[in-house]
Amino acid sequence: MNGLTITLRPNGGKHLYEQIYEHIKLEIRKGKLRSGERLPSTRSLAEFLQVSRGTAELAYEQLLSEGYIEARPYRGYFVCAVEELAGLAETARDGRQFAGKGMETGNICNVTERAESRQERRCGEKEAAGAYVCDFSPNAIDMTAFPYATWKKITKNILVGANSDMFTYSCPKGDYALRETITHYLHTSRGVNCSPEQVIIGAGNDYLLMLLEKILGRHVAIGMENPTYKKAYRIFESFAYSILPIAMDDCGMSAEALRQSGAEAAYVMPSHQYPMGVVMPIGRRMELLKWAGEKEGRYLIEDDYDSEFRFKGKPVPSLQASDHLGKVIYVGTFSKSIAPAIRIGYMVLPEPLLDIYEEKCSFYSNTVSGIDQRILNEFIRNGHFERHLNRMRKIYRDKHDLLLNEWKGMEKQFRTMGENAGLHLLLQDKRGRREEELVRQAESAGVKVYGLSEFCVGRRMSCWEGAMVILGYASLSSGQISEGIHRLKQVWGHENGNIFI
Amino acid sequence: MNGLTITLRPNGGKHLYEQIYEHIKLEIRKGKLRSGERLPSTRSLAEFLQVSRGTAELAYEQLLSEGYIEARPYRGYFVCAVEELAGLAETARDGRQFAGKGMETGNICNVTERAESRQERRCGEKEAAGAYVCDFSPNAIDMTAFPYATWKKITKNILVGANSDMFTYSCPKGDYALRETITHYLHTSRGVNCSPEQVIIGAGNDYLLMLLEKILGRHVAIGMENPTYKKAYRIFESFAYSILPIAMDDCGMSAEALRQSGAEAAYVMPSHQYPMGVVMPIGRRMELLKWAGEKEGRYLIEDDYDSEFRFKGKPVPSLQASDHLGKVIYVGTFSKSIAPAIRIGYMVLPEPLLDIYEEKCSFYSNTVSGIDQRILNEFIRNGHFERHLNRMRKIYRDKHDLLLNEWKGMEKQFRTMGENAGLHLLLQDKRGRREEELVRQAESAGVKVYGLSEFCVGRRMSCWEGAMVILGYASLSSGQISEGIHRLKQVWGHENGNIFI
Repeated sequence: MNGLTITLRPNGGKHLYEQIYEHIKLEIRKGKLRSGERLPSTRSLAEFLQVSRGTAELAYEQLLSEGYIEARPYRGYFVCAVEELAGLAETARDGRQFAGKGMETGNICNVTERAESRQERRCGEKEAAGAYVCDFSPNAIDMTAFPYATWKKITKNILVGANSDMFTYSCPKGDYALRETITHYLHTSRGVNCSPEQVIIGAGNDYLLMLLEKILGRHVAIGMENPTYKKAYRIFESFAYSILPIAMDDCGMSAEALRQSGAEAAYVMPSHQYPMGVVMPIGRRMELLKWAGEKEGRYLIEDDYDSEFRFKGKPVPSLQASDHLGKVIYVGTFSKSIAPAIRIGYMVLPEPLLDIYEEKCSFYSNTVSGIDQRILNEFIRNGHFERHLNRMRKIYRDKHDLLLNEWKGMEKQFRTMGENAGLHLLLQDKRGRREEELVRQAESAGVKVYGLSEFCVGRRMSCWEGAMVILGYASLSSGQISEGIHRLKQVWGHENGNIFI
Repeated sequence: MNGLTITLRPNGGKHLYEQIYEHIKLEIRKGKLRSGERLPSTRSLAEFLQVSRGTAELAYEQLLSEGYIEARPYRGYFVCAVEELAGLAETARDGRQFAGKGMETGNICNVTERAESRQERRCGEKEAAGAYVCDFSPNAIDMTAFPYATWKKITKNILVGANSDMFTYSCPKGDYALRETITHYLHTSRGVNCSPEQVIIGAGNDYLLMLLEKILGRHVAIGMENPTYKKAYRIFESFAYSILPIAMDDCGMSAEALRQSGAEAAYVMPSHQYPMGVVMPIGRRMELLKWAGEKEGRYLIEDDYDSEFRFKGKPVPSLQASDHLGKVIYVGTFSKSIAPAIRIGYMVLPEPLLDIYEEKCSFYSNTVSGIDQRILNEFIRNGHFERHLNRMRKIYRDKHDLLLNEWKGMEKQFRTMGENAGLHLLLQDKRGRREEELVRQAESAGVKVYGLSEFCVGRRMSCWEGAMVILGYASLSSGQISEGIHRLKQVWGHENGNIFI
């Protein structure tokens, strides 16, 4: 078997199928396995390498999903042409996903390879995710129920020459009509009190935070819940902000710890903390608002990223709704409720910051297409958004309930947290296993779960003990959820019960 | 005449119609002229105030265009309801447009008014422009010939459930397919040498410059041509950059002055300098590239904002095309060539900056809708963009030639500059008149022209003497161009020949 003589290390840091996958990938990249070359069947490979057939299959699945090999019906597996690889998923990240201690093989790749992988790394995330039977990603959403026909119809009605005004520049804050619509929506659904003049529309929340840097200034000491939304963390880090991780308890960010930290601003997710899922009770909200009110220039940045989805109990109003001092900067997005790709987010500035916005930001052109703003406005005003939200709430609730139902019987080993809202939940181990162990066991079963430490800033500072993993379910089919949970139960239910290796 | 007793100052800094317009506006805002109240006819008002009927008409036209009053057929002019004013054009900027010395009246407006005007100022620009018979804005473009049907058809074909992938997150740099398309387009049309990995797609050039701040760092001494694109100036100013205005001669930015300035980077528009219209010859380009090559960390930011439109002679390649050292950061946009509203620009980073991008920017989500990226990609790949550009080149060339033709006979009084490329040109006065005088005379004839000093940083430092005004013509109909030039000839052709006052 040319190019397939692999020295497997059964007790190495990596699983056998990963070792096989990485070896074959490298052989293809080096050109030792040539384009069009037929690979042995999984049965032959398994026999040759003395591994289970499942292991060989997993290795091939990974290679297939990344476009290194293709399956031709009735004929077998073939190496893909090199030019067909261009632009596909690359390995720096893929490698990291499987990274135990033994990354030696991955490090051999030459400079060109690393340059490629560096550049296309992020673009390859999606492809890499395909390597799992079930990826409980907390970032994905379900696009299958999106009303494409409605969106298309609105677009069609709008794209006419008579609307040519819409094709020119819009107001830096965004289209006034859409800002009115968002104001109304936020008031009725989230209790947000504002006027359209306070609403800034921008191409996603990353961009809105960049604007906020211009408004709040270059050197802000910002308190963040820990664990937190790591992307916001990275963005604040890229501003020269001092980030102060603030301990959480089961009511959310500790106001006392915040006060002692010396922070001038705090970034919080009171409706459904990411990733812990904590809903901040009114008492804690008042404490935070009190903290902000104690000193001029203190602000609370409220990220209300997935508040549309609450499955049990009454909707919880936003923190902004309780703010009478103009201390809350409210940030929201249509990424979860409509689609990530439309890149429309909004920020509601408190009155005292409007003058600063005007002085420091009003010369920046708005970043959202005027046409898209008009489409979204029609979509909301004609009731399609509400109908879509209702439909999605039902879909997500069903998935959420299915997941909890499938999980039954595991309550002795794991505590579930953060359910009843949002699109992910947490599992807290009661048996003293390590997080990496849980993640790796899941991985060996073809299931991707996310360890809490990925979301932590430095050492975890919270009142919770025990390893935790995060399961997002929004983009998974009910079949995938059942299969994923079934597999997790198998590997987690019986210690060392890894069925593949 | 309740509320219309106006003390006019015939020799004040402002024209009579402006004084009347501002007085009435203020009375409406103060509530002294009430919603629904009927105003006198222009004839009665003119008689009452002892001004010409034309003056009264101009004042009413301004109020009409800004939505303060409305004209009811056969009945006359009525004050608009206050709630109908919400979101309409506001006055901070309008005021500035007419600002001579005598802004006293405007300063009386109360705090609420200022807050409103501050907030909707920018959104009101378009409405304010409507006050002119002809606005030679250098920023506007012609949307009448846009292929709406084609754009709609592409959109329709793309918006299907099968493309649901397109609705999720894309690569931070932008959709790979579109980056390939842009790479190819820039290579064939502008001589730009790059790979798709170097192309970053972003929601407009303001945003791309914000990313560039993260890449180049927080404290850069940047050289800018003077006069320059004031918006870029404001943006660099908002980054704590030291801005060094560099003198220009008729070859563009002086390399010698740049060297002496101590700048670490320079922002240049070599294809058609804004606003001077200078095309930088190859010798000067080489001098700038040599400057950049002399020291590590020096970069040239090339803004190639309207290079698609060149009417005489061969196309001039980009500066990036001559750069063999990786010193040019190339920035371009589809705002002029397709539509401002689509908010898609691109930046080509030189190889040495890619690692820094990866480290400092790759966690920012891309800011352009994945759907729009796909539509644009199809639009370019299927040849529609090229056809549209050819059509627009012809349309703009005709307008350009008409303008120059109508201008005939004025050569003794004005030198024309910056013609043959781009969408605006300059008129340089040979008779020693002041710029404000020219702008004001044009205004009195209902024509908006733009004084060069609006584009200057501090004192003008250039080799050109004499007042200059800028005329953009892209969005004007041929009738408007003829009428506008006819009016300019009347007021500028005979000194003090103001026909309205």
